[in-house]
This record gives sequence, structure tokens and C-alpha cells, in this order.
Amino acid sequence: MAVRDPEAKRQQLLDAGLAEFAAYGIAGARIDRIAKLAGCSAGLVYTYFGSKDELFEAVFEAILRRTLAGIPITPDDLPGYAGRLFDSHETHPEVVRLITWHQLERAGSGPPLRAVTEAARAKVDAINAAQRDGIVSDRFRPAQIVALVLSLSAMWSSPGPETCAVTDRAFRRATVVEAVRRLVEP
Amino acid sequence: MAVRDPEAKRQQLLDAGLAEFAAYGIAGARIDRIAKLAGCSAGLVYTYFGSKDELFEAVFEAILRRTLAGIPITPDDLPGYAGRLFDSHETHPEVVRLITWHQLERAGSGPPLRAVTEAARAKVDAINAAQRDGIVSDRFRPAQIVALVLSLSAMWSSPGPETCAVTDRAFRRATVVEAVRRLVEP
Repeated sequence: MAVRDPEAKRQQLLDAGLAEFAAYGIAGARIDRIAKLAGCSAGLVYTYFGSKDELFEAVFEAILRRTLAGIPITPDDLPGYAGRLFDSHETHPEVVRLITWHQLERAGSGPPLRAVTEAARAKVDAINAAQRDGIVSDRFRPAQIVALVLSLSAMWSSPGPETCAVTDRAFRRATVVEAVRRLVEP
Repeated sequence: MAVRDPEAKRQQLLDAGLAEFAAYGIAGARIDRIAKLAGCSAGLVYTYFGSKDELFEAVFEAILRRTLAGIPITPDDLPGYAGRLFDSHETHPEVVRLITWHQLERAGSGPPLRAVTEAARAKVDAINAAQRDGIVSDRFRPAQIVALVLSLSAMWSSPGPETCAVTDRAFRRATVVEAVRRLVEP
């Protein structure tokens, strides 16, 4: 059976893969469930992506590119940037889960994706420039600030007794934004 | 075959369980590997713990109790407290992995462990008192400070391009300690 719109089918498979990998991780994901969700045969998944691992990588890279493009860093407003990252984590818990599974099941195996390392370097450069312009405090080095901002934006994404105690979304967001402001204000 | 020292065998099984769950998660862990590592039969694991899920819970609770007892909160020195938590994460990556698997595979299923919620409440109370005494800034509420300190202490534990760029342990630790200092100093 020929696929009428290969690009649309590819996107359907990426979406189905995101749902499956977010729920079960890489080892636990099943190609037959992904195929069923995308309304096609398991064989087609292999035709498109080669293997479960390669499908995971395609899903992971698509998600990262979407996030990087959708939420560009604003070095003159790092608290706002952290707030927008927080919003994205709240709206897309499946993305947070995907990244966490990747950390557990893939971290340290092979070099990080080039799109990701390039984006990380661009962030450091942007903060470096903002420090030279006096917009961002130089109390921390650029690599520290990048790590602090990204960590704080995700601080409520790990369910735990400390985070469960605070359920109000606006209050969670204010914690992130105010903490980043306090850390980076000149 | 009778077990000569049941308490020692129980501890061996908890240690083996920690290694297995940290590596493979709950769904991926195998009782036969745990039994082999502890030098006993799979049957004995079930005799002691009932099921894989119950063994996981026992391992998880033992780890939490050990961490809570080993690193008590010091509300008059929250940067130091964050630094000691950071040291613990660096020394015991298997514990960080165990907690992360728990978040992915168990979060939201059932109430959190009582030992954990009690410890979280004790932290909030301690910070509340420190704020009344003027030792800790009241710019954030106690629940916010608890979440900030715990998040920052673990900020380097998630492998990613932002964290991989900083490999020096002393520099990582200083980031945590200085960020907490900046956030909580009166």
C-alpha cells in the first residue's frame, strides 16, 4: 500500500513516537503501539526510520529543534526567557519526560546532537555579550548562567514532595522568574 | 537452605536492588539479576520483599532515609547545605538515577512516602524559623526556598549540553553554593 502523503505520515509517526516514548521510555516503547497510533503497519515504521533507536533519535531531535526555534534566548530579559521555558515545560510535560528518559537511557552514549551543542554555544555567546554590555551581572560566568537559567526553568518539572507542596502555577512561575532575576541582575 | 544472617541478606538484597534499579529502572529491572548479585535465589527475593514493586519501594525508602539522616538541613547555612547535597549527588549518581526512575515510572501513583513528606515539612518549618530570626531573606516563601535549594543542588545531575560544558567539579559546586547564597542572603 503506497502512502499518499509521505511527509504527513512521517510527522504522524513522530507524534505517535513522542507519545509512546514519553510514556514508556526507549526500552519500554513498542513499535506496534506506535504504528497503531499512527494508523499504519509496524513495517512502515521500519521503512521510515530503520529501527526503534533511530525513531527515538528522530523524535528527540525534532522536539529539540522545535523548542529551540520556538523559545529563542533573550539575553536582555533572562527572567522572561526562564518564564517562557517554564510555560513550555508546563504545557508539554511529555517533552520533559522524553528528555528525562533520554538522560537515563542514552546519556553518555555517543556525542550530543550537533543542533543541541550549537544552541548551547549560542546561548553562552549571547550571555557573554550581554555581560560585556552590562545588561547581565558578571557575578557568574556565561556557562554558569546558562545552566542556572535552564535548571531553574525546569525546577517544578520533577515531581517530588518539595514540588508537590506548591501547586499554584502562577506561584511556581514567579519563583522561577524572580530567582533568575535575582541571580542575573547587574 | 536457611539464611544464616537474615538482616545482612536483606541489606545485600537492598544494595543489589539499588544497582539494578539504577541501571534499568523499575520495568526493566530483573529479579534474577538482583538475586545473582546478592548471591541467592530469586525465590528468596520474593520471600523477603513479596514483589519487584515492593523491593523497589524498600530500596527507595532506605535511600531516602539514609540521605535525610546523613545530610540534615542547616537553615543558618543553606549554601553549605546545598553544597553537601551536591557532594552527595556527585558521589552517588546511582541514587540520582533511582529517584529519576521513580519520577518517570511512579510519580502520581499513590501518595508520597510519609518519611519524605515529613522531611519536606520539617525543612519548610526550619526555614520559616530562620526567616523570623532574620538569618534567611524573606524575599521567597519557605516552600519556594526549599524547592530552589534542592533544585540547584541537583542542577548538574542531569546530563545535557549545558551541564556537559562544565566538567570541573569545584566550579560546579561553587555555582550551586553561590547561587543559593545570592538567593537566600538577607
